[in-house]
Order: sequence, then C-alpha cells, then structure tokens
Amino acid sequence: MKSNNLIQLIRESKAIAVIAHINPDGDSIGSILGLGLALKKLSDHVDILMQDDFPGKFNFLPGVHHVKKPSQALVEYDLIFVLDCGDAKRLGDSIDLLQKAKAVINIDHHISNDSFGTFNILDPKASSTCQLIYSFILEDLQLGIDEAIATCLYTGITSDTGSFKYDNTSPVTLRAAAHLMELGAATDEISFHLYHNNSLSSVRFLAAILDKMEILFDGRVALITITQAAIKAFSVQQEELEGLINYCRDIEGVEVAVSLKENENGWTKVSFRGKSYVDVNQLATVFGGGGHKKASGATLEMGPQEAKDLILQQIQKMI
Amino acid sequence: MKSNNLIQLIRESKAIAVIAHINPDGDSIGSILGLGLALKKLSDHVDILMQDDFPGKFNFLPGVHHVKKPSQALVEYDLIFVLDCGDAKRLGDSIDLLQKAKAVINIDHHISNDSFGTFNILDPKASSTCQLIYSFILEDLQLGIDEAIATCLYTGITSDTGSFKYDNTSPVTLRAAAHLMELGAATDEISFHLYHNNSLSSVRFLAAILDKMEILFDGRVALITITQAAIKAFSVQQEELEGLINYCRDIEGVEVAVSLKENENGWTKVSFRGKSYVDVNQLATVFGGGGHKKASGATLEMGPQEAKDLILQQIQKMI
Repeated sequence: MKSNNLIQLIRESKAIAVIAHINPDGDSIGSILGLGLALKKLSDHVDILMQDDFPGKFNFLPGVHHVKKPSQALVEYDLIFVLDCGDAKRLGDSIDLLQKAKAVINIDHHISNDSFGTFNILDPKASSTCQLIYSFILEDLQLGIDEAIATCLYTGITSDTGSFKYDNTSPVTLRAAAHLMELGAATDEISFHLYHNNSLSSVRFLAAILDKMEILFDGRVALITITQAAIKAFSVQQEELEGLINYCRDIEGVEVAVSLKENENGWTKVSFRGKSYVDVNQLATVFGGGGHKKASGATLEMGPQEAKDLILQQIQKMI
Repeated sequence: MKSNNLIQLIRESKAIAVIAHINPDGDSIGSILGLGLALKKLSDHVDILMQDDFPGKFNFLPGVHHVKKPSQALVEYDLIFVLDCGDAKRLGDSIDLLQKAKAVINIDHHISNDSFGTFNILDPKASSTCQLIYSFILEDLQLGIDEAIATCLYTGITSDTGSFKYDNTSPVTLRAAAHLMELGAATDEISFHLYHNNSLSSVRFLAAILDKMEILFDGRVALITITQAAIKAFSVQQEELEGLINYCRDIEGVEVAVSLKENENGWTKVSFRGKSYVDVNQLATVFGGGGHKKASGATLEMGPQEAKDLILQQIQKMI
C-alpha cells in the first residue's frame, strides 16, 4: 500500500485497534505500544488491546495506561493492526474483531505467518516486529519517533534478539537500535527493567531448577520441569520463568533444550530451544504448537511427567 | 600524533610489541589481537604478548597463534602499544619492556588511566578499548578492517558492554558493531563461544553458588564466596567464574554485589559491582585495587572469611 493511501485510510477510519497476541512478550508489547502511540498522532480513535494481564516487568514503558482489555473494547473497529502474531489463532478473544473489520494490517516477522491480513508487511529476516514498526512509522506513516515510541521499540528489539546476541541480529538491527538511542530511547531504564532487576525469589528459583536439570541423550538434550508446587513454594511470577530454558540451551553439546511447565489446570506448557540442526518449530508442530526454527512451544493436555515421555520419544526420532 | 607520523613511526620501528594486561578479558584480548593483526600489515616485526595462559573461551579468535608469552619476547622493543590497561602495574612481567621502549602508545577507556604512555589515546566514554581500536585502525592507521580483525574487535565490544546492555553502550558503539558485522565479524561464532557454550559443570556450579548466596544489609548487598574446594569439586575453569557476580548485582534492591574468590595461595580476589550510588572503584581503592565506578576488584592477602569481615565493614560506611 502506498504511504499516502495508508495515511488516508488511518485518518478516515472511525475506530482503530492495535492488537497483541496472547502471552505477549517484549516484542509484542513494544510494538503495540510503539505503533499505538504513533497512530494516536494521526487519529483520536485508537485502542491498544491486550487480552492478558500486562506483565509487570514492562510497566515502565510509556503508554502502558492506554492498554485495554478486549472486554473494554468497542464492538467493532474498521481498521485493525495485528502485530507480531504469526497465527491469527494467537489473538485469543480479539479474533472476532478481525471478521468485522474493513481492513486488517498484519505486521510480523514470524516465518509461520500465513498473510491473514488485508495488507501484510512480513519480513522473517527482521529481528523483531519492533524493527519493522520502526521503519513503518518513519517511512510508511511518515511520522517522527519521539522518546516514548523509541523506548517501546528499543525494548522489543533488545527482547527478541536476546540483547543483540541471537543470529536474527543484523547490521540493520544495530543501526535501528543506534538511531532509537539517539531519538531518546531510555536504554538504561530498559536494561535495568529487562536484565538487572530480578527478584531474589527468581534467583533462588533458578538455583533450584538448575540443580534438578536433567541431561539426556548423551548430553544433547537438557530438560527442566517447573511444577505448580515449585512456583508456589518460591513465589515466582509467571514472567520470571521465561528465561530459564536458555540455561539449558546454552550448555556445551546441548542440541535441544526443553522446559516443561505445569499450568494451573494441570496441563503442560512445553517450550523448545534448538541450537543447530534440529528444527524445533517442526518439533512443536507435532504437538499442535509452533514458533521459530530455534524457539517454539506447545501446550499438551496432560501432566508434565506424561508430556515428558511423549516429547522425549519424538526428540529421539529427530536428534 | 598525526596519522602520517604514526604510520612512519610504525614502519621505522625495528620491533613492535602489543601488550595485554594481566587477567585479560574479552576486550583486552580482542584489542591486542585486532590491533596486532592490523599492525602486521604495516610491519613484519610485531609481537603480541600476553603473560597469562590464553583463556580457552577465546581460542576461536583469529590470530590466537600469534600470541607469545613474555618469556618468548625480545629483550627490547622500540615501539610498544599498551591496550586496555588502566594502570601500568597491570602489565605484569612486561612492565620492564616499557622503560626500554623509545615510544609507548597507550590506548584505553579506563577512567583511572594516568596517561603513562608517550602518546595516549584515552576515552573513558568509549564502551571498550576495542571501540577505540576500531577508529584507530580506520582513521589513524588508515587501514581496512578484514574479517579476522572485525571478529576480534566485535568480541571486545560485546564483552565489555555485556552484549550492549551496560550504560557504556552508545549509538557510536552500536554503529561500530553494525559496521564490524558488515566487514565480516563472525557474530554467530562470537555469540556461541561467549554466551551459548557453557560447560555443564559451570551450570551446576552456578546452581550451587546461588543456593549459598548471602543477602546482607536489608537486601542492599549480595555476596558469594567461591572457595578452592568448590572450584575443584565442580571442576570449573577460572574463566567460568567471571560472570557469577552479575547474578548478585542483578537482584532487585541490591546496590553492591561482592564476589570473594579464594586464590590458590589462600589469598582472596574480591570483585565488586555497583548499581547506582555506590562508587565501587573507591571501594576497591581502599583495598589497594581499582577499576570502574560500577565494576572493580582487589586482592586481599588473607582468606575469604577474614576478607569478608573487612569488606563488609567498609561497605557499611559507604552504603
């Protein structure tokens, strides 16, 4: 879509929604806030929607007070931006809004994205959706990026690149980050909240989980199990469990890292990380999930022990 | 010094040495290798000297085979580059070479550097010495940066910025990193060796150390003690102990993180990390050490328990 037509579409829309996927991560949150704040410069009718409770770790971000639950949303929006959402099913309750919209703009970097939008801006080579939003705001919306927007977008980029360590980091990523820093991104605050402000209980929990980590298949698989009992015993928050699997992945010789988390209903949320030759997106697909080649997940309708047996059988075939 | 004069000085020097400080870190190693490889394009008489055993983690770096021990060095060099060395005392055995040299070029980013060189290129605002070497090679030596040099320099920059997370990261840092990536820095290999290839024993050791971590002064101090007995029991390498203190620093409410490591001779190497208002460079100075405002260290000629008491007394005065 041409920039002029896009801007006209935004100005003419009576109600606009920007929607995050369920279980939102830093890139999802950074992109809906960053784009949401930018769109508010063009229109008075922009809602930023998130089904989940806003993760406390990101409470420092500008624009947080604009975020609404789908229950507070309008019955319909004529223009909807869906961000960082590889699969429309990940929209949760907001999926109904898509059918009613006149236009859906789908901006994403997940390779699994099936172009469900009316307009699709997809680039699986981009580090993050925030990197795409950075260009989208400057080039397509022809708007400036202020300090608040820069802070949101930098947060998404650093989140999805593991602070510029993962192989999705490119010179374009680093230059976008440099520019966002110049535009006023609060990088000290971002680093503090994302990386240097862990709760004591999460550190004690880390020690306990690593102590029980299982090393399987001659060291090629590392597996951790996170039970509801342990979560309660250590009083750790949901969002504090995210990075644990990386400790498994980052061990010499480990090819597949597995985290089994018991949900409150007794089912198991499994996460996979791959290092080189195993495509964990394929692995997750077997269990009805998905993601990227090196990071994926699925939910199994059974307890962690039962899920573990099934998963290890599947891994044995692929490793 | 003008670029032409510098290049002439290098071409006319009969023997050139590039020297690292003792206990070399990623920035120190990246800078001596990066500059060493560049100087070899201008002169056939360049030695890269390192007193310590080369840390295995950095064995993947290009140019490693050029590194010599001071015992393999010449009796004198007419031109010496000292890199990343805040204090000439940190040169170890190589300090004698400085007196005999016609010229010493001191390139560093430590604020404590007292300009001990004949020529001094000091910038405490630079993220790393490698960031300074990047400009020095392109602008002062007027040389290109090839893939090998780019890999060395990127390694130093990512090491000293905690992968672009610390507040020494600037837009200049990120743009230098972007450029080095374009010039062929092997960033996937760097990330793998620096961040994603931990030994299993180091992960088990992490769990054990965090389990025994002490939280003091109402949560404002976190302290770990690493004994020789524990190092031997877990078979961890020296270089695997480096990042442990960061787990202490990164806890909510912790202002000063302390790591007490028992040396083989029974003395204690103490490391400090500060978060906001305590200047840990001052703290280390009290014990005859030094460093940066937020990262410093010292060696105490006593066991860890005795050292701990002294240190906590001092921290109580400053906190």
